[in-house]
Amino acid sequence: MLHATSRALKFAGTLGGCAAIAVCTVHIAKSAAQSAKQGTPDASAAVASSNASPIYGVTVPPEYRDWKLISVNHLVTDKVDQLRAQLGNDIAIKAFKEGTLPFPDGSIIAALHWNLVRSDENTRVIAAAFSGAQSSIAGVPVNVQFMVKDSKKYAATGGWGFADFKEGKPGDRALHETCFPCHQPGKAHDFVFAHYARAP
Amino acid sequence: MLHATSRALKFAGTLGGCAAIAVCTVHIAKSAAQSAKQGTPDASAAVASSNASPIYGVTVPPEYRDWKLISVNHLVTDKVDQLRAQLGNDIAIKAFKEGTLPFPDGSIIAALHWNLVRSDENTRVIAAAFSGAQSSIAGVPVNVQFMVKDSKKYAATGGWGFADFKEGKPGDRALHETCFPCHQPGKAHDFVFAHYARAP
Repeated sequence: MLHATSRALKFAGTLGGCAAIAVCTVHIAKSAAQSAKQGTPDASAAVASSNASPIYGVTVPPEYRDWKLISVNHLVTDKVDQLRAQLGNDIAIKAFKEGTLPFPDGSIIAALHWNLVRSDENTRVIAAAFSGAQSSIAGVPVNVQFMVKDSKKYAATGGWGFADFKEGKPGDRALHETCFPCHQPGKAHDFVFAHYARAP
Repeated sequence: MLHATSRALKFAGTLGGCAAIAVCTVHIAKSAAQSAKQGTPDASAAVASSNASPIYGVTVPPEYRDWKLISVNHLVTDKVDQLRAQLGNDIAIKAFKEGTLPFPDGSIIAALHWNLVRSDENTRVIAAAFSGAQSSIAGVPVNVQFMVKDSKKYAATGGWGFADFKEGKPGDRALHETCFPCHQPGKAHDFVFAHYARAP
């Protein structure tokens, strides 16, 4: 049940949150398969692969929380109610601003998902002046997803490598098998659903 | 009516969106009053002041859209339905991460507000797998607000200067008179309502 929920979150998140990510090789760990093939199934490779997404071998870029904002969104289903933000590394942000398609290699997009929680503190203040006021904020972090653009390495999946992490750990292979099929409807925008939110 | 709505948005936004802003002198324009007092009511000062917030003299920091993300939130009232993001300059972000209170001089917080719009594109994809799915994204930009921390210059208002802009133009004096009273309930957190959203 928990697993199903996790998968549901992942799948929904891929659709609603991910955008574009170009391959940043420093963040791509060797997969166990690659190590075995090269005859180097050493301990460090095993550790690295345990923190990388199945299929794609994407690891968490250390500084992603400090990346620039692409946009924000809200997703509700029968099971989840989330506030979400998409951040991009400099290559991705430049492409978003300039409308470059396809996204260049090196682009990485991060989709951050939090449970939506009501803010009694905010609501109390706002409701004093505005009827019907309800303020909700980002609560407990749920998961973070990445799209990494490498047109050669990921040629079979639109040039994108995918990853989904919960508390620093990647989801399983079955979960990651849903990523690219889910992004297929976004083909006209290089499989990226997020759009850059204009500055007010 | 339009004015009332604008004021309502501003007031609500101040409550729900702003956080901390320390004085960044480069972004503080001389007010007309200051110029007159100093006997320099020249043309350039008049132009500068027209783009600065009344009372506080805060102008739009040119690069604010590229600042780092503090958090996201959702505000609904009888009249508005908005997705919001708070961004901070480096001084503010450091203070948020380290839990520094009061925020140091130089901190600036930007609160960006967009009308929430339903995304048929996202919803169609997600609803195929998850019942009750509804995805909403940032639509038309509404306004952006700033809090600028300067404990001396703004000593009378908790050390904060405030500003609200719509399409690059500051709101009127009456609007800005609501900023500090609205933030008073947040005194224990240095008059800042936003909290830093942890990385998933």
